[in-house]
Amino acid sequence: MRRWSFAKGHGTENDFVLLLDRDDLMSVGEAEVRFLCDRRTGIGGDGLLRAVRAKHIESWSGDAELWFMDYRNADGSIAEMCGNGVRVFAKYLLDEGLASGPTIPIATRAGLKEATLLADGRVIVAMGPVEVRRGEITVRTAAGVEFAATAVDVGNPHAVIFCDDLEQLSLHPAPTWAPAEAFPDGVNLEFVRAVGPDHLAMRVLERGSGETRSCGTGTVAAAAAARQHRADPNDLPVTFRVDTPGGTVEVELTAEQAYLTGPAVIVAHGQVAVPDA
Amino acid sequence: MRRWSFAKGHGTENDFVLLLDRDDLMSVGEAEVRFLCDRRTGIGGDGLLRAVRAKHIESWSGDAELWFMDYRNADGSIAEMCGNGVRVFAKYLLDEGLASGPTIPIATRAGLKEATLLADGRVIVAMGPVEVRRGEITVRTAAGVEFAATAVDVGNPHAVIFCDDLEQLSLHPAPTWAPAEAFPDGVNLEFVRAVGPDHLAMRVLERGSGETRSCGTGTVAAAAAARQHRADPNDLPVTFRVDTPGGTVEVELTAEQAYLTGPAVIVAHGQVAVPDA
Repeated sequence: MRRWSFAKGHGTENDFVLLLDRDDLMSVGEAEVRFLCDRRTGIGGDGLLRAVRAKHIESWSGDAELWFMDYRNADGSIAEMCGNGVRVFAKYLLDEGLASGPTIPIATRAGLKEATLLADGRVIVAMGPVEVRRGEITVRTAAGVEFAATAVDVGNPHAVIFCDDLEQLSLHPAPTWAPAEAFPDGVNLEFVRAVGPDHLAMRVLERGSGETRSCGTGTVAAAAAARQHRADPNDLPVTFRVDTPGGTVEVELTAEQAYLTGPAVIVAHGQVAVPDA
Repeated sequence: MRRWSFAKGHGTENDFVLLLDRDDLMSVGEAEVRFLCDRRTGIGGDGLLRAVRAKHIESWSGDAELWFMDYRNADGSIAEMCGNGVRVFAKYLLDEGLASGPTIPIATRAGLKEATLLADGRVIVAMGPVEVRRGEITVRTAAGVEFAATAVDVGNPHAVIFCDDLEQLSLHPAPTWAPAEAFPDGVNLEFVRAVGPDHLAMRVLERGSGETRSCGTGTVAAAAAARQHRADPNDLPVTFRVDTPGGTVEVELTAEQAYLTGPAVIVAHGQVAVPDA
């Protein structure tokens, strides 16, 4: 039995177990991630965020002294980035005195991200460029209702569907899309209702996870698709409020990239007994 | 914001947040229970186990110096007893040095319970008398399949159904029972397969919770019903192994009462930031 220190936190109810493993000594393998993220026999989370010095990450070629966000899904698989996770990660580093803010650079598998703690406690993260793709996509619910969708690339693939009624929408079983070759590796689906000119409400089905309480890159995709519908899509910057079932975020779109602002909460710290491998 | 110390543990994957509140000073109301048991924004658990001196519990008329197990459901409501919870509670008291074992008396809303830590790490709890009731009960699944059921009282009401195939059984939406007046306050349903003469496998639908990973009193009810099917039901004591989706327990039936033996794991300790009321 090993005793590890951990923290638990969430951003718009997307929740994470956090580990500090500065010198990459903890041997956090798939079994350990699955144990820690198990909601009944472990701590519980959508994923694990491990803080490790970037010099220990082989694939990282940037500044070796940065903190690297080693993000894993609850099933133990490696993930590139998480828009809600990176806010929680930044809040953790600042709370623990591991970085001095308000702005901190964070190394991720999707490159260098910059996070800034705002005076109101929220965290803003530069999410990089967003690309709205051309081409007609059709999304079809299990009940047979068809919608036109907009394909958006936020580092990961999204299809955004505008509709009038999110409450009545049946998303179980999951909708399908056509043409299939538009998203050979699957896609995140955002169903979006325009509440006002700069205000969206959204439900999201994450690739491999089904419907979730929130998806950071999904809110960015929703805003990017909504921007296309504006009278002057090139009038930038523009800011959207996006409501998800788990909470509210803000997405700012500039000519260069997207910025995601939202809450980040560290709820608990503790020690966990981890079974030996 | 209040900072509370907590522990988290589980018995056959029935999981709990534990609080030490010796002198009843912490003001643990419904809002606090819901927050702590929330799996995304809090710690997460099926319920909360608060350790408080029995003298602070108005309804308790026994030994004032005992530990009282104040058990609450995740929704904040008060619950009488929990067969898996009382094992975890006993393990917690012993681990923390709050009681000296191996046998400790525990005051509960269902009366005094005695728990003993075994050499193999499991905990055995005297569950009190079990009553198999007369009368014909019919349970009908949503798919229209009907089963004969045995009504069993373990302090709370159960209906036990024997069937040959648990895997194929569709329990969503939940089955209904007849006559309705047999269980005016609802009932826990146990679907049980006889693996061997002393070995049962079980799926359980808990009153108000739907299907769960395990239910301690449900395993006792299953064993009591299975005893009726034996060649000599009065040949006592008898011990059944009962497999639930969350793990395995043992139920011993004597002429006087039932004993439930199973695992109890304390997985983590920590401090949690609780929002002010």
